[in-house]
Amino acid sequence: MSKALERRQKQREDLLAAADNMIAAAGLAGLKTRDLARRIGVANGAVYNLVEDVDDLVLRVGSRTLSRLDAALTAVEAAGDASPVDKLSRIAVAYCDFAAENTGLWRALFEHRVQPGKDVPEWYIAQQMELFQHIHGPLVVLFPKRSAVELGVLARSLFSAVHGIVTLGLEQKFVAVPLDVLRREVARIVRAMVNGIVLEEKAEA
Amino acid sequence: MSKALERRQKQREDLLAAADNMIAAAGLAGLKTRDLARRIGVANGAVYNLVEDVDDLVLRVGSRTLSRLDAALTAVEAAGDASPVDKLSRIAVAYCDFAAENTGLWRALFEHRVQPGKDVPEWYIAQQMELFQHIHGPLVVLFPKRSAVELGVLARSLFSAVHGIVTLGLEQKFVAVPLDVLRREVARIVRAMVNGIVLEEKAEA
Repeated sequence: MSKALERRQKQREDLLAAADNMIAAAGLAGLKTRDLARRIGVANGAVYNLVEDVDDLVLRVGSRTLSRLDAALTAVEAAGDASPVDKLSRIAVAYCDFAAENTGLWRALFEHRVQPGKDVPEWYIAQQMELFQHIHGPLVVLFPKRSAVELGVLARSLFSAVHGIVTLGLEQKFVAVPLDVLRREVARIVRAMVNGIVLEEKAEA
Repeated sequence: MSKALERRQKQREDLLAAADNMIAAAGLAGLKTRDLARRIGVANGAVYNLVEDVDDLVLRVGSRTLSRLDAALTAVEAAGDASPVDKLSRIAVAYCDFAAENTGLWRALFEHRVQPGKDVPEWYIAQQMELFQHIHGPLVVLFPKRSAVELGVLARSLFSAVHGIVTLGLEQKFVAVPLDVLRREVARIVRAMVNGIVLEEKAEA
């Protein structure tokens, strides 16, 4: 690799790390490219030699967050044998913990909108979709007869339900609850939902 | 009532109706008090003779939205006899429909933050809490032995789960689904959750 390319890559990493810290500390609203340029020691305009635009910057930070979330979910899955229902419940609690520990970065995943007229890039959507594999795995074991499309819908519903409980719980707007209560609720609701769906399937059979 | 007081009350109603329309059309970000003043035919500063500040204005519009939501939920409850599980499921679908039909006003309920250092007024919190009665009623029938606190936590979890599914479903960010699929999913997940909790209680007994 040429020296120039190497330096550019180093600057790009510094930029993403700095943007990551900024969003972690103050959310999307706290992201100022001028301050970023100063922090990594480049001229204002030079930031846009490293990323395409602010959307690209935020999505690349989002990608780092998704990777970290993926690692956190993988870690709890590796934590020993468990029934599929237990696995889903653990994954949901790990999601809750991740959100509580990385609130700024996690919120940014949902608050960010790309500029009107632009599309979210394919690579980013693919990375989001990959995360659903964590939910998909246990669901296939529980519901072997359901099609991939049906399991996809179910995985999204489970995720959205847990996301709703975690979001309103952490926001303490409608649902002011301490974290340990929130974790218990998340585990309980996931168990109840999945057991309820198992029950429904038995009734249909 | 004095003529002056009457006129002031009429202007206040006009102001709230205009703000309601504005938020319905363009969300919280579309609310411009200068435009509001023009629409109701008062001077710029005169808006603040009618409401305390922007927070007060948004909360009063929010109160109108909550009243409409209350009416929508009451209407489906009155739509004939149903088991408690069916009632909860109908209420959740009605919530989904309300969000789909009043997206701007509904989003504003969750996006609005009062200015730092200020508290959300008691009357507004009380109105929010009253809405939980719709969920609480069927839950008392299903779980007569549970305490009011336990049922309160459960009501909030059910609401948050449904809210998550509706929010991500309507946003079409993570979960792009047509409204009829979303309604079916909401109904199914509520049934599954509640049946799952009934099952759990039987297992504990």
